[in-house]
Amino acid sequence: MSTISHEAAFAALQAGAQKVREIGEPSSLAIVDSGGNLVAFMRVDDASLSTVEIAQGKAYSALALRSPTGNWLEAVQPGGALYGLDALGGKRPFVVFGGGLPVRSGKSVIGGVGVSGGPVEADITIAEAMLHELQQS
Amino acid sequence: MSTISHEAAFAALQAGAQKVREIGEPSSLAIVDSGGNLVAFMRVDDASLSTVEIAQGKAYSALALRSPTGNWLEAVQPGGALYGLDALGGKRPFVVFGGGLPVRSGKSVIGGVGVSGGPVEADITIAEAMLHELQQS
Amino acid sequence: MSTISHEAAFAALQAGAQKVREIGEPSSLAIVDSGGNLVAFMRVDDASLSTVEIAQGKAYSALALRSPTGNWLEAVQPGGALYGLDALGGKRPFVVFGGGLPVRSGKSVIGGVGVSGGPVEADITIAEAMLHELQQS
Amino acid sequence: MSTISHEAAFAALQAGAQKVREIGEPSSLAIVDSGGNLVAFMRVDDASLSTVEIAQGKAYSALALRSPTGNWLEAVQPGGALYGLDALGGKRPFVVFGGGLPVRSGKSVIGGVGVSGGPVEADITIAEAMLHELQQS
Repeated sequence: MSTISHEAAFAALQAGAQKVREIGEPSSLAIVDSGGNLVAFMRVDDASLSTVEIAQGKAYSALALRSPTGNWLEAVQPGGALYGLDALGGKRPFVVFGGGLPVRSGKSVIGGVGVSGGPVEADITIAEAMLHELQQS
Repeated sequence: MSTISHEAAFAALQAGAQKVREIGEPSSLAIVDSGGNLVAFMRVDDASLSTVEIAQGKAYSALALRSPTGNWLEAVQPGGALYGLDALGGKRPFVVFGGGLPVRSGKSVIGGVGVSGGPVEADITIAEAMLHELQQS
Repeated sequence: MSTISHEAAFAALQAGAQKVREIGEPSSLAIVDSGGNLVAFMRVDDASLSTVEIAQGKAYSALALRSPTGNWLEAVQPGGALYGLDALGGKRPFVVFGGGLPVRSGKSVIGGVGVSGGPVEADITIAEAMLHELQQS
Repeated sequence: MSTISHEAAFAALQAGAQKVREIGEPSSLAIVDSGGNLVAFMRVDDASLSTVEIAQGKAYSALALRSPTGNWLEAVQPGGALYGLDALGGKRPFVVFGGGLPVRSGKSVIGGVGVSGGPVEADITIAEAMLHELQQS
């Protein structure tokens, strides 16, 4: 896999939705390509409206920063080395708490997944399920 | 159906993707709920980046204006009765050419679908396939 | 060439700058990648400030719409089939007059070049010089 | 030098790109003029997307604040004398960590350079290489 096909994206959304049901945290699921542009999105029943933007922001941030979103939480804090980084996303603010993961193919980052809905730990678990599915494709 | 479940949205995306392949016009597919907020999105392989925003705009416009998007093309023209309407969408411009359809349940409008990728006629055909699927749910 | 390297981008900027001097129209030159994100930019001496955004907009539009920007000028006019398309670019408006060209590699569109500064004909000539150089790489 | 010519900007981008390769941190390089408007930009192969906005932000901030960007990191912290300054950049947020340097000509500030890609120390080293080149012109 060097790019994310829509079939792979479908499968990842379904894997994410299944995990949402298992853990009982209605969530939005987003997948972006290597350019940070939306490939696929699903708001699983009853996820709050706030999650629509945040899930997309996490997917974008994980791609643009090439790392799990939560990795930046400490550095952007008051006194941290990258204070203010979260405001510097350009087309949308960077999300710096967990739930966004980069999608890798070999050494390249070819996309990002983002989940928003429950506590950060739940978001990460669901994002990992989506990523696992993408990496089977 | 009084709201669009994520299972129904999945099925509609799949019906849309199948129609995309049949007619050979790579396209983006979007579904919004009764609040105009994104429920589901899929960029079927190789649809151009321009389609990401336009498909969402069509779904939003069809919901917000409660009619197929192409219905407004004449009225918004210079000299038309609703000149300038297209700029009044609030969070995004209204799209006034075809490819967005409202989703109805009885007398209520409960959402919108939008398709962008090919010529307007192809977009409408794909949107109708998605709508047909949603109305089976 | 399947992506635009920075060496190729350098060479294209230089080819563009040389053409700018030949025809005497100070201009901004922009190159975006397949995701519509900026790769390289040069405002050749004394190009007006308006050209900074417009050159980038043309490069983005040519990539996102996968065609020369001027191809859309007629369809977006009052009475045209895609009236209002120019407002639907998402992160920036689409530019629908000439000076933006898609960069192709086989059947794929891998980027865009945009030029703004002189009359549209000059912009196109300069953009063609950049594209020619990119396609040598 | 009282303004940054495009030849000088070219040379500075090339000096920056060479330093990028030496130290092995793919980075975006930006140069703005005395009005804070973009003169030249280069994303050296494989720099992450996040660097596109941040490099431009650093160049703008160094010019607008007339000092190296990292100088402000302490003062903008909660409890600091300029708390909130980073949000006051107008067209874009000020970046308050290192990697942006003002370009001086005698007593005047005639532009800014900004680098984003590696750790802050690498960004500064690359920005210094660009500045050195500009000051030869």
